[in-house]
Amino acid sequence: LPASETRSTVDRLKKLRLITAVKTPYLANGKFDLPAYDALVSRQIEKGVEGLIVGGTTGEGHLMSWDEHVMLIAHTVNAFGDKIAVIGNTGSNSTREALHATEQGFAVGMHASLQINPYYGKTSKAGLLNHFNAVLNEGPAIVYNVPGRTGQDIPDDVVLDICSHSNFLGMKECTGNPRIKNYTSKGVNCWSGNDDESHDARHTAGAVGVISVTSNVIPGLMHGLMAAPDAATNASLKELFSWLFCEPNPIALNTALAMCGLVRPVFRLPYVPLSRAQREKGAALLTAVQEHIPGCTGVRVMEDHEFILVGRH
Amino acid sequence: LPASETRSTVDRLKKLRLITAVKTPYLANGKFDLPAYDALVSRQIEKGVEGLIVGGTTGEGHLMSWDEHVMLIAHTVNAFGDKIAVIGNTGSNSTREALHATEQGFAVGMHASLQINPYYGKTSKAGLLNHFNAVLNEGPAIVYNVPGRTGQDIPDDVVLDICSHSNFLGMKECTGNPRIKNYTSKGVNCWSGNDDESHDARHTAGAVGVISVTSNVIPGLMHGLMAAPDAATNASLKELFSWLFCEPNPIALNTALAMCGLVRPVFRLPYVPLSRAQREKGAALLTAVQEHIPGCTGVRVMEDHEFILVGRH
Amino acid sequence: LPASETRSTVDRLKKLRLITAVKTPYLANGKFDLPAYDALVSRQIEKGVEGLIVGGTTGEGHLMSWDEHVMLIAHTVNAFGDKIAVIGNTGSNSTREALHATEQGFAVGMHASLQINPYYGKTSKAGLLNHFNAVLNEGPAIVYNVPGRTGQDIPDDVVLDICSHSNFLGMKECTGNPRIKNYTSKGVNCWSGNDDESHDARHTAGAVGVISVTSNVIPGLMHGLMAAPDAATNASLKELFSWLFCEPNPIALNTALAMCGLVRPVFRLPYVPLSRAQREKGAALLTAVQEHIPGCTGVRVMEDHEFILVGRH
Amino acid sequence: LPASETRSTVDRLKKLRLITAVKTPYLANGKFDLPAYDALVSRQIEKGVEGLIVGGTTGEGHLMSWDEHVMLIAHTVNAFGDKIAVIGNTGSNSTREALHATEQGFAVGMHASLQINPYYGKTSKAGLLNHFNAVLNEGPAIVYNVPGRTGQDIPDDVVLDICSHSNFLGMKECTGNPRIKNYTSKGVNCWSGNDDESHDARHTAGAVGVISVTSNVIPGLMHGLMAAPDAATNASLKELFSWLFCEPNPIALNTALAMCGLVRPVFRLPYVPLSRAQREKGAALLTAVQEHIPGCTGVRVMEDHEFILVGRH
Repeated sequence: LPASETRSTVDRLKKLRLITAVKTPYLANGKFDLPAYDALVSRQIEKGVEGLIVGGTTGEGHLMSWDEHVMLIAHTVNAFGDKIAVIGNTGSNSTREALHATEQGFAVGMHASLQINPYYGKTSKAGLLNHFNAVLNEGPAIVYNVPGRTGQDIPDDVVLDICSHSNFLGMKECTGNPRIKNYTSKGVNCWSGNDDESHDARHTAGAVGVISVTSNVIPGLMHGLMAAPDAATNASLKELFSWLFCEPNPIALNTALAMCGLVRPVFRLPYVPLSRAQREKGAALLTAVQEHIPGCTGVRVMEDHEFILVGRH
Repeated sequence: LPASETRSTVDRLKKLRLITAVKTPYLANGKFDLPAYDALVSRQIEKGVEGLIVGGTTGEGHLMSWDEHVMLIAHTVNAFGDKIAVIGNTGSNSTREALHATEQGFAVGMHASLQINPYYGKTSKAGLLNHFNAVLNEGPAIVYNVPGRTGQDIPDDVVLDICSHSNFLGMKECTGNPRIKNYTSKGVNCWSGNDDESHDARHTAGAVGVISVTSNVIPGLMHGLMAAPDAATNASLKELFSWLFCEPNPIALNTALAMCGLVRPVFRLPYVPLSRAQREKGAALLTAVQEHIPGCTGVRVMEDHEFILVGRH
Repeated sequence: LPASETRSTVDRLKKLRLITAVKTPYLANGKFDLPAYDALVSRQIEKGVEGLIVGGTTGEGHLMSWDEHVMLIAHTVNAFGDKIAVIGNTGSNSTREALHATEQGFAVGMHASLQINPYYGKTSKAGLLNHFNAVLNEGPAIVYNVPGRTGQDIPDDVVLDICSHSNFLGMKECTGNPRIKNYTSKGVNCWSGNDDESHDARHTAGAVGVISVTSNVIPGLMHGLMAAPDAATNASLKELFSWLFCEPNPIALNTALAMCGLVRPVFRLPYVPLSRAQREKGAALLTAVQEHIPGCTGVRVMEDHEFILVGRH
Repeated sequence: LPASETRSTVDRLKKLRLITAVKTPYLANGKFDLPAYDALVSRQIEKGVEGLIVGGTTGEGHLMSWDEHVMLIAHTVNAFGDKIAVIGNTGSNSTREALHATEQGFAVGMHASLQINPYYGKTSKAGLLNHFNAVLNEGPAIVYNVPGRTGQDIPDDVVLDICSHSNFLGMKECTGNPRIKNYTSKGVNCWSGNDDESHDARHTAGAVGVISVTSNVIPGLMHGLMAAPDAATNASLKELFSWLFCEPNPIALNTALAMCGLVRPVFRLPYVPLSRAQREKGAALLTAVQEHIPGCTGVRVMEDHEFILVGRH
């Protein structure tokens, strides 16, 4: 792209307020259920979602082969790229894989990438800088800090270094609003990565918005929370936020969307459904907001035998 | 294999005292340097190492494609399988990938696998049980707990459940000797995953031995520490142990073996060498034990420009 | 897609007259040169080409990994899919690979696939029917018969069987115009796969058009040959057609486009440039039509040392 | 390996008389059936077979992913490498893939590779030389000429050029005994690739032996034909040879081994079983030599519904 076009893309992407880390639905054989995916995405767009993370941790990118991951990005660009920003989670703990996937993602038209620090393998500060600069050179990117998953916090000085890269869009920060406030006070663009903190992140800590899990279920309400301060609605969702993270995400989300009839009840291992007791609690919470769940004509507590677990696909 | 043979394999593997998480050396283009690898492994065998983790976190399995990972396991079995136990790190945070790699590893003759819990993606207890039982069904396995990398501790009750599987060899436990003592008191076989605690783990906490990083450098000394209590030698190595983990492993090990002249100074990103100051400190520590570093004819502080960083290979 | 939309797509695709089996240009490291590719495609569109075969034998799909092949299809759809029909060569001699690639190609928006019979491995008539029906079920497809490459002619009775499939678009037939005439007389849609016979195929043997190699170089002239009978122009191109196939395609085409300055002179092995003598002959032929080669500002006989041969990429 | 060892390996491999292009048996899900494979190989060894082509066209290497292909080579080396020469079919029509697979095959211990010319894509003489020299540099190799599959005969002058490479073991030649006689008269080592001509190839045309399909079924008889002239036995097998190639190999072989009860009746598409009539004819021929089919306790004409066809695995 010409530099001016890249510049305007970067500026536009930096202002996205509601980005959904979109669920990847599966067929019974464990392959992608593209019609169900398209229906999910269409409803997201209708309800005001401005961007998608494709194959994020919520979308289970770590359970995809790279060819199906890039295919899903390409599919999303082709079907919806003129209506919503498509951000591919092409990060990896291997710099080689991150570079290859990011390059492919941009080649098929994604607007930006999401870049994680090297989880599990970890590296030194010098290694972090090397890794992030390499992937930022490929195109616009959001950098993702979630030490509860990666085993390694991205230190402030690394963030303050890479934020000057012309392709840096901002941080997806999961360590809380004080950290976000500190970053935004220094001019570092931020999205909250925690739904329960996102209202305050946006309205008091300077975050531009949220990269949300909950918006898979109630996109319109999340859109409202980002559009204007609304402490009452935010408070009313507290239990739902909490339930959606009662087990490592996306276990509850997967269970929720199945119980809402919006995706087939298929889990790629190592994810398995919530327990019966957790499902009952969730069904009650979902029923309470059912009118805000687009496409949902009823919430049902499902039985163990209805879920399909796929270990090989 | 017939059940009796599997049984005797399991019994033999449970008694390995010194297992090295072996370094994977690279050529300048980032591909495996098999002659250097073979030399490393031969010296390990000469100095009393009884088992190898191939493609562990130390061996940078997370930076390998699966085809080169399985190839390295097969190569090791073919070249050394009659002299040393070959344990392939065929775990993954994707159950599908773990099953496929583990199946392939056993097909090419590895003796056991190393199985991590699903890092980064994480899962529920029910998901952990599902994952571990699936991979244990493939053959003998050591289960690896390292929450500082995975972002999720494997809970005691999960360990006490899966330890009754006939293919369970024991835990590689990195959370300290009190935990190990608790496990071994309940009959759960354990290896220490921390070199600095391994002497005490073996001689006072009931661990059978260690899965060691340091033994890449000084296999004979580590063999001695496992063979009999030797508090003096253990104390003398304290600084070396500490230096080897001054940055996320295997950064210091990679730097050390290059400075000892045992591998080419090639790093796959996101790993980069230690800083000049760290290298100087390490060179002094290594020189002090040089007579115990097999194959080493001199330790040299290397310069930045001598190292090769590979982002695409 | 809804059935009516598929129907109209099929009807539209059946009428394409000039389809280019587009060249894939490379960077010096052997990766795709997407800017050069985009320039080529843009010029094709300007000169009236109506469809592209992406990753055909001309585009060296057999030298691509599937992930880069599907990526190139997705890229083409995203960048040009509203202006030209994108036909991915997602066939394979392995039914599994053909199904997987074809499924992915349609998921990223390609309009149709090109399907070869199982070359090299070959199979029985019953196997051919099984293979073609499987891939035709995935979406609209052109079936490609080129026994000089595959080692096995697709028999007439197999063609007459599969042509009734609702996704069958027609044959790309390379065995000559009498065969095409026989097929079209029976209502089987056909494209000529031989540039030198394509004028007559279209105007006397009932073919709808051509899938062309030569149109990479002179798209406007080939468009003219398809638009209306023009025996004089056709005759004038005889030597150029002949030269373009003096070695197995795309050796001459690759050499030609490099000598015209339209692609970097990079060859993926086992392809190597034409000899110096062949290049001289070609340069003369190309110079004679230079005004019809879009983007070409001069034809130059290149030297051996200017070409880059890539064995590993 | 040291040069002297390579030299002696090459000399030994050049003298192999009976090499089987071994069948790959499958489970019902299309994955490898390793126990059935091991049983087949064990019987081959018992009956005097001296070498194996692993994943040849008979073994359906073209229907394998490379990771399973290299895994099968590694498995064979590990289980049988001290009793039989293991020759991996690591050739490809892509030089890059051939180099990668050949390198991996040697890394896991295979003794030699089988190298095809670039089928389907084809190339010029200069390209052939470039391709063959690249793969011969990796280690000992047999070069395979089968224009009926590849669409391109390897010209005599190319053979006479590459035969001087120190890793060249000989030709697997399928174009008939006059060609073999010409080659052997010039000192080019040859194996016949046609079972029906192999007796004469060895005893009158100078071939060292055969790379055989039929020896999967009757290894002892084929061993006899190679050991000493035996025109009567050779004549008696004429109909069986003919039947085994009544459809593109390995269709009849797959059907035969299933009807002999030696492999599960599973076909990877595009292969499908012979027709009922062909099966009846084959069953009669197989019954006539049943005492020479190791492991076979009865031949049975199977029904259509008993066969499993696998399109995705």
